[in-house]
Amino acid sequence: MLINSRTVRIQWGDCDPAGIVFFPRYFAIFDDSTAMLFERALGMTKFELMQRQKFSGFPLVDIRARFLIPSRFGDDVVVESGVSEFRRSSFDVRHRNGRIKGVPIPEEIRAKFA
Amino acid sequence: MLINSRTVRIQWGDCDPAGIVFFPRYFAIFDDSTAMLFERALGMTKFELMQRQKFSGFPLVDIRARFLIPSRFGDDVVVESGVSEFRRSSFDVRHRNGRIKGVPIPEEIRAKFA
Amino acid sequence: MLINSRTVRIQWGDCDPAGIVFFPRYFAIFDDSTAMLFERALGMTKFELMQRQKFSGFPLVDIRARFLIPSRFGDDVVVESGVSEFRRSSFDVRHRNGRIKGVPIPEEIRAKFA
Amino acid sequence: MLINSRTVRIQWGDCDPAGIVFFPRYFAIFDDSTAMLFERALGMTKFELMQRQKFSGFPLVDIRARFLIPSRFGDDVVVESGVSEFRRSSFDVRHRNGRIKGVPIPEEIRAKFA
Repeated sequence: MLINSRTVRIQWGDCDPAGIVFFPRYFAIFDDSTAMLFERALGMTKFELMQRQKFSGFPLVDIRARFLIPSRFGDDVVVESGVSEFRRSSFDVRHRNGRIKGVPIPEEIRAKFA
Repeated sequence: MLINSRTVRIQWGDCDPAGIVFFPRYFAIFDDSTAMLFERALGMTKFELMQRQKFSGFPLVDIRARFLIPSRFGDDVVVESGVSEFRRSSFDVRHRNGRIKGVPIPEEIRAKFA
Repeated sequence: MLINSRTVRIQWGDCDPAGIVFFPRYFAIFDDSTAMLFERALGMTKFELMQRQKFSGFPLVDIRARFLIPSRFGDDVVVESGVSEFRRSSFDVRHRNGRIKGVPIPEEIRAKFA
Repeated sequence: MLINSRTVRIQWGDCDPAGIVFFPRYFAIFDDSTAMLFERALGMTKFELMQRQKFSGFPLVDIRARFLIPSRFGDDVVVESGVSEFRRSSFDVRHRNGRIKGVPIPEEIRAKFA
């Protein structure tokens, strides 16, 4: 399955007074991610696709989202997007959000630089 | 079940180039509706609730939405919101969107004014 | 000058991690206010106006805004909007934001209820 | 003057029913651009800056914007941002938006590939 991955910096204006992403902003981020996935798969932008096919966007019929860990202002999150199923006249897009974590550098590696 | 009902005018800035609501905007509308539902039930605003209870918002864990008919720029939609289930430490809020339709005035009523 | 006045509740999703309105949201609020001003003046909604006049919105050429006091989550702000100047093919809209303050009830009035 | 330049794809959800950027979205884009400018100048993110300095964002006192040409869905715009003036306790940030135009490939260059 073709997966498009992109890193999104969580900006000040994406966040609410609790300092975490105001959840509707996730859906705007995912909508952009869908456009980028199709751009990568088809070799043309959503705009070009719409010009050529004379369609007016992907009508959305169903959304399901689970929020596992909140993203905070300043986080860099990796959004991975793919079409998980194609049917005759509809398809499912799946997005997955993961925070980029600083991985601690193992002691043995540090040692070599000492 | 307590249902809070409010009418929301779909504004220019809520809509996308297809002239219909950009779907993340629905979630912002629903989030406001949840706040208003709690305000009606508790007799205090979400702000007052947060001051008193020292909590920082309702963490959202799961969303499901089905889009049946698109709302367009200029529509007045009625959003009805209620808590469909309370559990020990979580609850479900259900929102329902309906367009206000002009109901045709029955001929017999018109006739009385003729 | 015709002034349209409306009260806007500052919602959770309008605010940033500092707990105050994320300023681009003011402009969305003002844009709605302009639509409501025209609706009141013309007796038709912006949608109806656009249908009739076959124009596609008010092109914006210039914006100036001064931010005097921040609005916070939970505030009710009164937005007063009016057209301050009409020229041949352009016009200026002025919006003014004021927080609704709870006015302390004078002691002599309280006394009458004691 | 340090100028930070970045390319922003105008997304579907940035645009209104006229197919052009809903102007409050520009201000969100510019706000991100200011954060990126400071990140480049200071070598730390806005988040890190706020952690260290214990300040809660840049209070905005004045905005002026002129809209010369509209940006449309699908456009790639270059946003150039710089601090045009520093005063004792305030500063001005200037953002400039330019569409990326496809430059026609000169005939003499095409010829070499024929």
